[in-house]
Amino acid sequence: MAGNTFGKLFRVTTFGESHGAAMGCVIDGCPAGLELSIADIETELKRRRPNSASGSRDEVDTPEILSGVFEGKTLGTPIAIVVRNTNQNSADYDALKDIYRPGHADFTWEAKYGSRDHRGGGRSSGRETLCRVAAGATAKKLLARDGINIRAWTSSIAGLKMPVPGEDGFIFDEIERNPLRVPADAQEVMTKIEALRKEGDSAGGIISCQITGVPVGLGEPVFDKLDARLAAAILSIGACKGIEFGAGFAAAAMTGSENNAADNSGGILGGISTGQEIFFNAAFKPTPSIGKPQKTKDKDGNMREIEIKGRHDVCIVPRAVPVVEAMAALVLADFMLLQRAARLQPG
Amino acid sequence: MAGNTFGKLFRVTTFGESHGAAMGCVIDGCPAGLELSIADIETELKRRRPNSASGSRDEVDTPEILSGVFEGKTLGTPIAIVVRNTNQNSADYDALKDIYRPGHADFTWEAKYGSRDHRGGGRSSGRETLCRVAAGATAKKLLARDGINIRAWTSSIAGLKMPVPGEDGFIFDEIERNPLRVPADAQEVMTKIEALRKEGDSAGGIISCQITGVPVGLGEPVFDKLDARLAAAILSIGACKGIEFGAGFAAAAMTGSENNAADNSGGILGGISTGQEIFFNAAFKPTPSIGKPQKTKDKDGNMREIEIKGRHDVCIVPRAVPVVEAMAALVLADFMLLQRAARLQPG
Amino acid sequence: MAGNTFGKLFRVTTFGESHGAAMGCVIDGCPAGLELSIADIETELKRRRPNSASGSRDEVDTPEILSGVFEGKTLGTPIAIVVRNTNQNSADYDALKDIYRPGHADFTWEAKYGSRDHRGGGRSSGRETLCRVAAGATAKKLLARDGINIRAWTSSIAGLKMPVPGEDGFIFDEIERNPLRVPADAQEVMTKIEALRKEGDSAGGIISCQITGVPVGLGEPVFDKLDARLAAAILSIGACKGIEFGAGFAAAAMTGSENNAADNSGGILGGISTGQEIFFNAAFKPTPSIGKPQKTKDKDGNMREIEIKGRHDVCIVPRAVPVVEAMAALVLADFMLLQRAARLQPG
Amino acid sequence: MAGNTFGKLFRVTTFGESHGAAMGCVIDGCPAGLELSIADIETELKRRRPNSASGSRDEVDTPEILSGVFEGKTLGTPIAIVVRNTNQNSADYDALKDIYRPGHADFTWEAKYGSRDHRGGGRSSGRETLCRVAAGATAKKLLARDGINIRAWTSSIAGLKMPVPGEDGFIFDEIERNPLRVPADAQEVMTKIEALRKEGDSAGGIISCQITGVPVGLGEPVFDKLDARLAAAILSIGACKGIEFGAGFAAAAMTGSENNAADNSGGILGGISTGQEIFFNAAFKPTPSIGKPQKTKDKDGNMREIEIKGRHDVCIVPRAVPVVEAMAALVLADFMLLQRAARLQPG
Repeated sequence: MAGNTFGKLFRVTTFGESHGAAMGCVIDGCPAGLELSIADIETELKRRRPNSASGSRDEVDTPEILSGVFEGKTLGTPIAIVVRNTNQNSADYDALKDIYRPGHADFTWEAKYGSRDHRGGGRSSGRETLCRVAAGATAKKLLARDGINIRAWTSSIAGLKMPVPGEDGFIFDEIERNPLRVPADAQEVMTKIEALRKEGDSAGGIISCQITGVPVGLGEPVFDKLDARLAAAILSIGACKGIEFGAGFAAAAMTGSENNAADNSGGILGGISTGQEIFFNAAFKPTPSIGKPQKTKDKDGNMREIEIKGRHDVCIVPRAVPVVEAMAALVLADFMLLQRAARLQPG
Repeated sequence: MAGNTFGKLFRVTTFGESHGAAMGCVIDGCPAGLELSIADIETELKRRRPNSASGSRDEVDTPEILSGVFEGKTLGTPIAIVVRNTNQNSADYDALKDIYRPGHADFTWEAKYGSRDHRGGGRSSGRETLCRVAAGATAKKLLARDGINIRAWTSSIAGLKMPVPGEDGFIFDEIERNPLRVPADAQEVMTKIEALRKEGDSAGGIISCQITGVPVGLGEPVFDKLDARLAAAILSIGACKGIEFGAGFAAAAMTGSENNAADNSGGILGGISTGQEIFFNAAFKPTPSIGKPQKTKDKDGNMREIEIKGRHDVCIVPRAVPVVEAMAALVLADFMLLQRAARLQPG
Repeated sequence: MAGNTFGKLFRVTTFGESHGAAMGCVIDGCPAGLELSIADIETELKRRRPNSASGSRDEVDTPEILSGVFEGKTLGTPIAIVVRNTNQNSADYDALKDIYRPGHADFTWEAKYGSRDHRGGGRSSGRETLCRVAAGATAKKLLARDGINIRAWTSSIAGLKMPVPGEDGFIFDEIERNPLRVPADAQEVMTKIEALRKEGDSAGGIISCQITGVPVGLGEPVFDKLDARLAAAILSIGACKGIEFGAGFAAAAMTGSENNAADNSGGILGGISTGQEIFFNAAFKPTPSIGKPQKTKDKDGNMREIEIKGRHDVCIVPRAVPVVEAMAALVLADFMLLQRAARLQPG
Repeated sequence: MAGNTFGKLFRVTTFGESHGAAMGCVIDGCPAGLELSIADIETELKRRRPNSASGSRDEVDTPEILSGVFEGKTLGTPIAIVVRNTNQNSADYDALKDIYRPGHADFTWEAKYGSRDHRGGGRSSGRETLCRVAAGATAKKLLARDGINIRAWTSSIAGLKMPVPGEDGFIFDEIERNPLRVPADAQEVMTKIEALRKEGDSAGGIISCQITGVPVGLGEPVFDKLDARLAAAILSIGACKGIEFGAGFAAAAMTGSENNAADNSGGILGGISTGQEIFFNAAFKPTPSIGKPQKTKDKDGNMREIEIKGRHDVCIVPRAVPVVEAMAALVLADFMLLQRAARLQPG
């Protein structure tokens, strides 16, 4: 129980079911004196919304700050942010009440708690990530003061690989203007996605993340290593199935001399930041909500055919980009505060 | 700070530097009444020791249980286990006092804390994993009562892939008899390792882990999902650079219909165990301690050549197998206890 | 930082400033399947409101459950409860912007965070206890299923002592009908309070609390003993200056034979519940907001005279009774869940 | 479960049963660079040992630092301290295997865990406080750098009151030379104690504690207020039955104007330190181990007569003085580190 809080000093608690009254978060431990406005939150929430490429239904998310900010600055008290759920039609989900969608958490959730809110996945909905983004916006604001910058992008969709920073065509400023958040011409990928949409199918992908400006020394060995905490943060995002730092799985096939020479660490050694860029890749499975008819089990254990109605994202990866950034920001903000306790202060 | 405790209800705190007086752990929260003997601990510690294949210096690790066990059973009080460091020759490390070994945590550790125990890496030494194995042995004992079984093996070394369970030649009982913990004839791998040893080089690899007997319902969304916590556990092991669950990175290239059909979830959906086998792969970089001369920086920022003396493991992956199992066991034991609080008990 | 969460498994995070947009709480870890309605929350919130005896301004507190409850039962997900602040007139507090009220947290709060919301004490306001009561209502509901009943009352005001359970005139059902929550004829106390009101002064008092139906075995030695956690819970209520269990301070003057014979333990031995009634007293200082002119310091360190305007409670003790119960309920609910992990379950 | 860790950033985990192999603690989160020697630990442990006045059996406690200190300074890694149990005669306790001593935790402990180490109370023994003192010695060293000084003394035994600081005869330096740690001529008290010893009876008392040099701003509202955390710390000491801050219970009988004028806050307002002296009293019940024959229950629920053999402290209060100081030190050290995260650092 009680798995809805993240962080030690910069602590975030989130709440909300997809078709309940509201989603929200409480940020406890943000230092006092930080400038924070509703616009800071809205900017990030907007990045998470569906666009022309995703093809799913849009919902205007209007955040409200209920506490913790006074005269434009944080008070050091909990910052509560709430977003009402408005674009919800619960009746759409009546057909799913007694059936478990393949690849979704319907079955496990019900097995764990004995019941579930079946409307839109309830708390296991992707809509839950909205709260992470709202909290992450605050963390980013805090990190920006220290020059820490977190940028993620879509580095692969449906097996199609994209350039990496430094390679041809990679311009960070272009990524946000691109509906798929890919660092290059998106035509081939768009064609693939459109084909999948017509087939009622979906695609997965890989998100890469680069963090610059991180001082040396962040991370708390031996269990709260920087990479360990980042891994937990990113793997806690629905649909994420893997993470690798620096050369990652490729490093496992190298020799020590190759790997030592190549600076493949991803900016982390012994679980502590080196002061260089942090780099990781995260794998996201294709969204399991597809239009094609599928076989699945109902509550009574009978095999049934299911056809998931409505418009769903063919590929949620571009919309997961700000979520990955947000979770990374929560981790970094926490470690920045923790690091203040690492050493004696000058006497 | 304070990153040396792992878990919420089944909590483990470890301590010890490689060349200090002792290594140890304190397990708080193990339920009362569990049969536990020093032999249970020794059996697992022995699995972590070097063998003919690893080629590094052996050290007999003799654990002592200082508390928490009375008349052969746990009391519900903290179980402290200590292992004295005996086979240590600190003078060997005098040359490393003012120099940072490439790929090691020497530099980051010193930058974080302002000082470090340079002898054998201090707390960043691989010897730290001994405490994880000792604690994991206790967790395994607890899990075994509920029929949960954790088995890891070497599924790749230096890029050479091994069979997976179900494929030809894979017999779990053979793995432990095999010095490399590979599930097949090890001759090709041994030849590769011997070649690397002669060159003064090292190899990385991949460890796979299968967990059977896990009931449906373990994991605490949204942040303490089962895969998120396993990821943190495994990435907290030194040299681990990545993890993937089920089909992992390969799933990112599949379509939704392919992935839904293939049961690629790795036994976890929505962060909660499905009741099926849990499966993950973890990537380990080649050990950075190599015999070949390397360039590195010293304390004053000067480039110097370093040659790391002594006998080191060419590939630590086989020895990391029981460490992976131990960390997985700590996660599972914790979630088994947490799950007891998920629902109302019958009135 | 991050001191706004209480509990380990039954965890409550509260937020809100007195004159901000809203107060609220998030309860994470309440088991799934518990019947919970808005009426359960309202009933307890109503007990906290001012009445004829307190004489302060009333504010209708209308709670809304934003998440975690579906079809009348808890989901096992976070339960967010919000109460809008409506009866607020921030202009009333302009005069207090640059001055520190004596006996209040104005000075310490500003010194800690570098700023504060001066309107009505901001987060240090007594209004913050509203969130505790809302969360406590949920905990009480959970405890009631197991037959645990928490009842507090005013056992002393302004030095005037009241009967204790078992003595003449003590009827639990009468206490709630009594505006001062005293277990006897309140005339003498009311007369005293009216006299203080005329003088522009205030009174403190003692709240006693009796918890019945607690099973033997709750509490987690050695640091999270039941009495230790209850002490932290009650002392975290503003204005509380002391707590004693069983015979408390009087026991310090007894001999061992007297104390052993008298069963003075207050239902707790070695930090674990004995199965008997739990009993404690908590001391509350007189509210520092008094009408009489007082000397105090302003922001620049100058001594100034302050006269606190508006209608304030002469004695907040009766209104603190449901707050004491709420905090005790949070502690008990947490330990009930923790106790599930104490022993092996039958194999 | 898992109640054997104290603190958030300066975290202490203790272990050990009275007649097991050893007692010990692991301190995680002590900043790197602090000078710490075995003598620092021994000095405090010696203060906890019995003396001529206490009359109980002495045991030489020889601490060993197993980790976390290198070349005389803390490394920032966990500091493990172990003390072997040597003066133990388990056979003494065979008669207590099936019987519950009155006023002790024998019954509750066994009811909770289903078993217990009956030898000398196992983990519920007063010997457990040794670990607190060892950890507290480290915290004191850290606090001393910042000029924070914690001094406790016996302010009452068996109902006999002692002077308070500022009154006649109170000299702090005298207290430690006095076997009862009273701030005045101890003759009357010694006479009382000798009389009780002859009768086979025991006495309780009150410990007062004064903390100087605390900066304004420590404490984390709303749940981790400084007084709330101190209360939990002190109430977690066996035999402690109550605590009060500043005027405490006496304040409950005052008027607001009296209390505001008198500066009765005990150095804490709104849960945050004011920068003035912190002051609290803690009540300790008489030790329940008395020579007089008593009635009690055995395992089968039968009433039996029990006579507790051996030499026991007539009054454990003087020996609890360093324990109170140690626990207060752990709280203060934790809040000193936490406070570093309260505000933005200059940009």
